[in-house]
Amino acid sequence: MADKKKRRRSDADSDTDSLPFKNRLKPDSVILQSIKTFTESTPSTSDSKPLTLSDLSLSTTCREVSDLPLSSVQSAIESLILSLTHSILSGNGFSFSVPSRSSTNQLYVPELDRIVLKDKSSLRPYANVSTVRKTTITTRIIQLIHQLCLKNIHVTKRDLFYTDVKLFQDQTQSDAVLDDVSCILGCTRSSLNVVAAEKGVVVGRLIFSDNGDMIDCTKMGMGGKAIPPNIDRVGDMQSDALFILLVEKDAAYMRLAEDRFYNRFPCIIVTAKGQPDVATRLFLRKMKMELKLPVLALVDSDPYGLKILSVYGCGSKNMSYDSANLTTPDIKWLGIRPSDLDKYKIPEQCRLPMTEQDIKTGKDLLEEDFVKKNPGWVEELNLMVKTKQKAEIQALSTFGFQYLSEVYLPLKLQQKDWL
Amino acid sequence: MADKKKRRRSDADSDTDSLPFKNRLKPDSVILQSIKTFTESTPSTSDSKPLTLSDLSLSTTCREVSDLPLSSVQSAIESLILSLTHSILSGNGFSFSVPSRSSTNQLYVPELDRIVLKDKSSLRPYANVSTVRKTTITTRIIQLIHQLCLKNIHVTKRDLFYTDVKLFQDQTQSDAVLDDVSCILGCTRSSLNVVAAEKGVVVGRLIFSDNGDMIDCTKMGMGGKAIPPNIDRVGDMQSDALFILLVEKDAAYMRLAEDRFYNRFPCIIVTAKGQPDVATRLFLRKMKMELKLPVLALVDSDPYGLKILSVYGCGSKNMSYDSANLTTPDIKWLGIRPSDLDKYKIPEQCRLPMTEQDIKTGKDLLEEDFVKKNPGWVEELNLMVKTKQKAEIQALSTFGFQYLSEVYLPLKLQQKDWL
Repeated sequence: MADKKKRRRSDADSDTDSLPFKNRLKPDSVILQSIKTFTESTPSTSDSKPLTLSDLSLSTTCREVSDLPLSSVQSAIESLILSLTHSILSGNGFSFSVPSRSSTNQLYVPELDRIVLKDKSSLRPYANVSTVRKTTITTRIIQLIHQLCLKNIHVTKRDLFYTDVKLFQDQTQSDAVLDDVSCILGCTRSSLNVVAAEKGVVVGRLIFSDNGDMIDCTKMGMGGKAIPPNIDRVGDMQSDALFILLVEKDAAYMRLAEDRFYNRFPCIIVTAKGQPDVATRLFLRKMKMELKLPVLALVDSDPYGLKILSVYGCGSKNMSYDSANLTTPDIKWLGIRPSDLDKYKIPEQCRLPMTEQDIKTGKDLLEEDFVKKNPGWVEELNLMVKTKQKAEIQALSTFGFQYLSEVYLPLKLQQKDWL
Repeated sequence: MADKKKRRRSDADSDTDSLPFKNRLKPDSVILQSIKTFTESTPSTSDSKPLTLSDLSLSTTCREVSDLPLSSVQSAIESLILSLTHSILSGNGFSFSVPSRSSTNQLYVPELDRIVLKDKSSLRPYANVSTVRKTTITTRIIQLIHQLCLKNIHVTKRDLFYTDVKLFQDQTQSDAVLDDVSCILGCTRSSLNVVAAEKGVVVGRLIFSDNGDMIDCTKMGMGGKAIPPNIDRVGDMQSDALFILLVEKDAAYMRLAEDRFYNRFPCIIVTAKGQPDVATRLFLRKMKMELKLPVLALVDSDPYGLKILSVYGCGSKNMSYDSANLTTPDIKWLGIRPSDLDKYKIPEQCRLPMTEQDIKTGKDLLEEDFVKKNPGWVEELNLMVKTKQKAEIQALSTFGFQYLSEVYLPLKLQQKDWL
């Protein structure tokens, strides 16, 4: 139907009235009303009673860590060390019981829509030639974390490594044991006050406190606010936004920030500038949970775009023990979707052929549970693999630099065109 | 002398009083007074009358671009196109005169302490099989820039590429011509409203406006403020800082931000998280110029640390035509310097052996003019190449996580230990 209204498109960047599909846009007030209805319907269904492992009778066979206050981490360490001391004094030496983080110990739980860790663990005794080194490293890391608790400061994994290079030898060893210690103590890595480098930025209708300073993200110019590395000092989130717009690339982020898209359609715009980092994942989850807003994702139309979406949504295998705290449930795939390429008449020369590796990654994704459970995603991914074409968000610039913010996104919102 | 006061160092991260050299620290008020004297002596010598190419009688043999307001870029384009039209109408066809940006056309000017472009240029005629394509691309880029002027918006190089993929074919071609267009019009790339992705952050005693919003960088928590991609919308800088601390890595940045180092020693802390990007270079320069503060650099003790320092200070060869606007004169090398490794007794296991490639890069740097003109730097670099040892800023964590902010930096400031 609508296709019959197609208009002759003059030269790419002529005046904006002739932009493809611009004539289908309804007034902003109409679009806003329809998003409002959607936003209001969101929290009650998905957030009021979040499922836990014990709801699914999985709490004995699966393992999860939780966010603990610093004082609890400190007492967990002190209890652990006390029990080790008892064991030594009663003549039994000591060993750690360490949860296994190998891929055979991982499970995707459809009801939770994320990857969790199963309950296998192994003993790491001190009095054993094959484990004495790792046991020593574990003890040292626990001691260092205890120091962080006492001082209440945050450090990076690199800092941790350098406190005892002689023992750790290289950083992969201290990093791996750090994840073990999270699992042993049953708390998240952020609870240990060990943080990752930040690279995300946020702008739009959000006010929050960062280490005691109140930040108004509508007053952050075009640069936006850098997302803090330590989520435990982020709080007091307030917002009048209708949704959160999660953007893969910073070029698209810049366009939306400069055009102050969040003033036309009240929203919060966030990006990790590529691969999601832990700080941005924690921040996104906190926004979703505290503000109860829908999250709409704008990623490239290629397997990596969907992969990135899945890391935000369902977690990475590497940190599955922490998936409950790192993942944001129910993210919607807004665009650029493989079907958008034809729908929005992206010219052939702005599409890129997929490489063999791209196609393989796409096919692998089709086997993943988190894709399978969403029939719409399967259909889109099948189309991508079939057409062997991909496209970046930036491909929309072919219709003019502001096509993204002035036509594509408003139309998507108007049509509630997400999966 | 002072070495005799050396104290027995107990286990690495025991209580802070036993930290190496901590006993040499004078009260903060004394250190502050000495920095104040230095800060006040800085502007008059280096900034009151910045040297220009014409002061050195180089304005006819060297070429530089300058920051132009958008309206001037627009009229420069319109004049250029008018003259091309005249040329066509008088039967001569048209061609662009394009400044050469090859390495043989580059010159390090010691008096300016930066790399500049010499005056060689070549003709790019339309009516020639070998140049018709590039001439067409040049014309198209100029047309797109003219659109940006009319709309007054900023785009990325990637956006620019996607507006005409059919013509540009790949992004290296549109990128290269974009630099040509800067040179042809005699203005900086930022004046063309084409911006690079931002990755830098700033925190500390600075207030500035970003796209009309006033930002107070003492109230940016631990995350800091993302440096805006478009320097032309940055202004109204105010500060009571005594110096700017330029930090190579974000781990060190985080330590200083969390400890609010800028409150103990009033300063502005800035980092590009690794390789300097254009936005951070422009921002640093603007701070230095408007606030007239000394810039102290904290980089890794390896050839790349010095290389990064040199890009901030003297520019990169790739953008030498714009060196006047991108470089920050008179950056001091605060640390970590090769001589610090022994001076601060960094344990052997926290130092890393230099690779063959590291050593080669170090030796190459010794041949560079911007290193040679600073005897102190040559001495340090010679020491690095001789000992074949490097160390990261993070190596200081061996004395405790806060050694950097509580002992090393205060002592450096107290001793005015920079080159």
